[in-house]
Amino acid sequence: MLVLKFIESMVQWSVIMKGIADVKGFLCGTGRGGIKKTEKPVDRDDVLVIVSETSATVAAVFTKNDIKAAPVKLSMEVVSSQDRVFGIVANSGNANACTGEQGFKDAEKMVKMCENLTGKKHFLVASTGVIGEPFVDRVEKGIEGAVKTLGAKSSSEAAAAIMTTDTFPKVAFFDGGGFSIGGIAKGAGMIDPAMATMLSFITTDVDIEKGLLQKILREVTDETFNAITVDGDMSTNDTVFILANGMSGIKIDESNCEIFVTGLKEVMGSLAYQIVKDGEGATKVARIIVEGALTKEEARKIARKIALSPLVKTAVFGCDPNWGRIIAAAGSACVGIDEGKLRLKIGDFLLFDGKRADYCEDDIYNYMKTSDEIVINLHIGRGNKSFEYLTCDLTCDYVRINAEYRT
Amino acid sequence: MLVLKFIESMVQWSVIMKGIADVKGFLCGTGRGGIKKTEKPVDRDDVLVIVSETSATVAAVFTKNDIKAAPVKLSMEVVSSQDRVFGIVANSGNANACTGEQGFKDAEKMVKMCENLTGKKHFLVASTGVIGEPFVDRVEKGIEGAVKTLGAKSSSEAAAAIMTTDTFPKVAFFDGGGFSIGGIAKGAGMIDPAMATMLSFITTDVDIEKGLLQKILREVTDETFNAITVDGDMSTNDTVFILANGMSGIKIDESNCEIFVTGLKEVMGSLAYQIVKDGEGATKVARIIVEGALTKEEARKIARKIALSPLVKTAVFGCDPNWGRIIAAAGSACVGIDEGKLRLKIGDFLLFDGKRADYCEDDIYNYMKTSDEIVINLHIGRGNKSFEYLTCDLTCDYVRINAEYRT
Repeated sequence: MLVLKFIESMVQWSVIMKGIADVKGFLCGTGRGGIKKTEKPVDRDDVLVIVSETSATVAAVFTKNDIKAAPVKLSMEVVSSQDRVFGIVANSGNANACTGEQGFKDAEKMVKMCENLTGKKHFLVASTGVIGEPFVDRVEKGIEGAVKTLGAKSSSEAAAAIMTTDTFPKVAFFDGGGFSIGGIAKGAGMIDPAMATMLSFITTDVDIEKGLLQKILREVTDETFNAITVDGDMSTNDTVFILANGMSGIKIDESNCEIFVTGLKEVMGSLAYQIVKDGEGATKVARIIVEGALTKEEARKIARKIALSPLVKTAVFGCDPNWGRIIAAAGSACVGIDEGKLRLKIGDFLLFDGKRADYCEDDIYNYMKTSDEIVINLHIGRGNKSFEYLTCDLTCDYVRINAEYRT
Repeated sequence: MLVLKFIESMVQWSVIMKGIADVKGFLCGTGRGGIKKTEKPVDRDDVLVIVSETSATVAAVFTKNDIKAAPVKLSMEVVSSQDRVFGIVANSGNANACTGEQGFKDAEKMVKMCENLTGKKHFLVASTGVIGEPFVDRVEKGIEGAVKTLGAKSSSEAAAAIMTTDTFPKVAFFDGGGFSIGGIAKGAGMIDPAMATMLSFITTDVDIEKGLLQKILREVTDETFNAITVDGDMSTNDTVFILANGMSGIKIDESNCEIFVTGLKEVMGSLAYQIVKDGEGATKVARIIVEGALTKEEARKIARKIALSPLVKTAVFGCDPNWGRIIAAAGSACVGIDEGKLRLKIGDFLLFDGKRADYCEDDIYNYMKTSDEIVINLHIGRGNKSFEYLTCDLTCDYVRINAEYRT
């Protein structure tokens, strides 16, 4: 997770526009289906098609939710039966979840359309938006438009086509010197990390075997997308796809994969950070660092409890250095922490060191008030393992957005 | 949990004032210590003393949080070493948590003062309020005042003395015909049921052996206080005390305890309902009923996921029958539910029956808009076990209350 520290600068998304479309051999196209049921048509593209010029090795991580959307079910079949695919088709505006057999047929139709229009075989599919609305034929118009613009759309335009309540497109890029990794993601609400988070598509031009790619993707997901939370709600559609088309000519195997893993962490870490930064209604990111644990899993448990606590999240919103809530949340993980061994800092300010420390509340208030990112560091004095979690504050706007989402 | 259904009417707290002070041999007194650190003194009593004329069998349930407040630690010692006690001393305005050795001494001092002033030995102690503020001597003035008014204070006045962000005192009473059970509780935020919830004190005049009383208290707690949530935050101070002084002359044992268990469920169920109804910022109670589970634990897991989901809670606030969020939350329990077997109702309206049902959204909106309590019923088609959970909506006021709590 430390990798996240030095990539904060990458979050200036308006500056950094390189992403999936800037990796050798990958083409993006977007189209407008008008998928979301609204009084007047939504004025932006809502279908994305990504195609690789040559077939690409595929790996994926899916939601663990019992209720899986139709595109998740179909893509799981594709990933388990195919080593290589040619592309991805995705839409926003409708999640195609809880839509039964018809939803599955609709997802298949999206894939078949892409295959027919591009003449290439094996596409993955993903959808995001409202759950439970019947899926719509209007997606077909969007796919046609997307295929027509293949190669003409930028990574940011690709990311924008899968936005729902997002306020900015999420794009990241890593230049490995000879190879590259690009990524896009969407997500702002219903974000919780029991697996992936909402949608993220990664492209790379390395040549890599499927099993290794899957292993690396799973590991990096655990330290990036699975270490963030906005609201603790696990989605039915969470999906991460990675496509490796080998066009850089660089072969990655167990012996030399370190640089690739570093790059992937950077890309996925940046996307994860951007998702939290764009958390529904959020005004601040909170970085929860738990240190001094016996195991990484213990540190993760505590960090997650703090990151999920509405009382901590509202205190961050209120710039209130209410450390009692942080310690209470940590204790609720029930791993056996001892009050007398705890050491808690907010930013550089020591608030608790076995007992209440001597600090000036106004100074900490000012730090919280003037910082976009609040660092909460809890040392539990049990061992030397650590874990870092990203969350955002809980604001009135979160409530407003979600009380009014559909109306 | 079905017992909660017929006690909703008891929630008209302004009508039903009978509680702990109305049980034979129990006296309540309250005093004003001015414990909470505020610019101008709080204009209400903040110390409660409960005394039994004869000694009373004791049982208790405490928070499972690793970080336990000083009064919790001290009361745990008392309950484990004594079968019978004479009373309870409690304060609001300061939780006496994360206060180290000094906090423990302060809790002991509260107990000793009560013992000296009443001439009776063995008191339990409980505190609620801000975590981590040094405890204050001002509590002594409050205890003196409370002991002076013993017998003169009503159950509602007793409950009011332990309020923090509560907007009404929580009181309940059961008349067993010959014996009675009274209860009070406090709690509105930092409510989550991994054990008890905040503070609740129960008095009864039955004669019962400690082991049986403890067993019954634990069981009833699991079905009442442990089946509610406001914000998923587990407190450092959660405590339920029950004192049985035997003064009714009625002996309760394994053979005849059914009526006593029923009464206790009614009292604790009513208090639990009142806590959710008074959830910080809440405008509505949501009753989550999960049926058709293989085990009660499975039903509880799913009900809890739905009850904790911010997206479900904001949808309830917005009167939005957004059943996709409910099903997604249920699926996130990962117990293995199958979309095709789900049957979901909101009130009497069927929304999903293996697939989206045919319903009129406006009708459901109107039901939600005009109801103080929203019933969400999910049948998962796996077995015949069920569980019921109470939660409240998530509103802007919750955020406002907790972003500004201390300032």
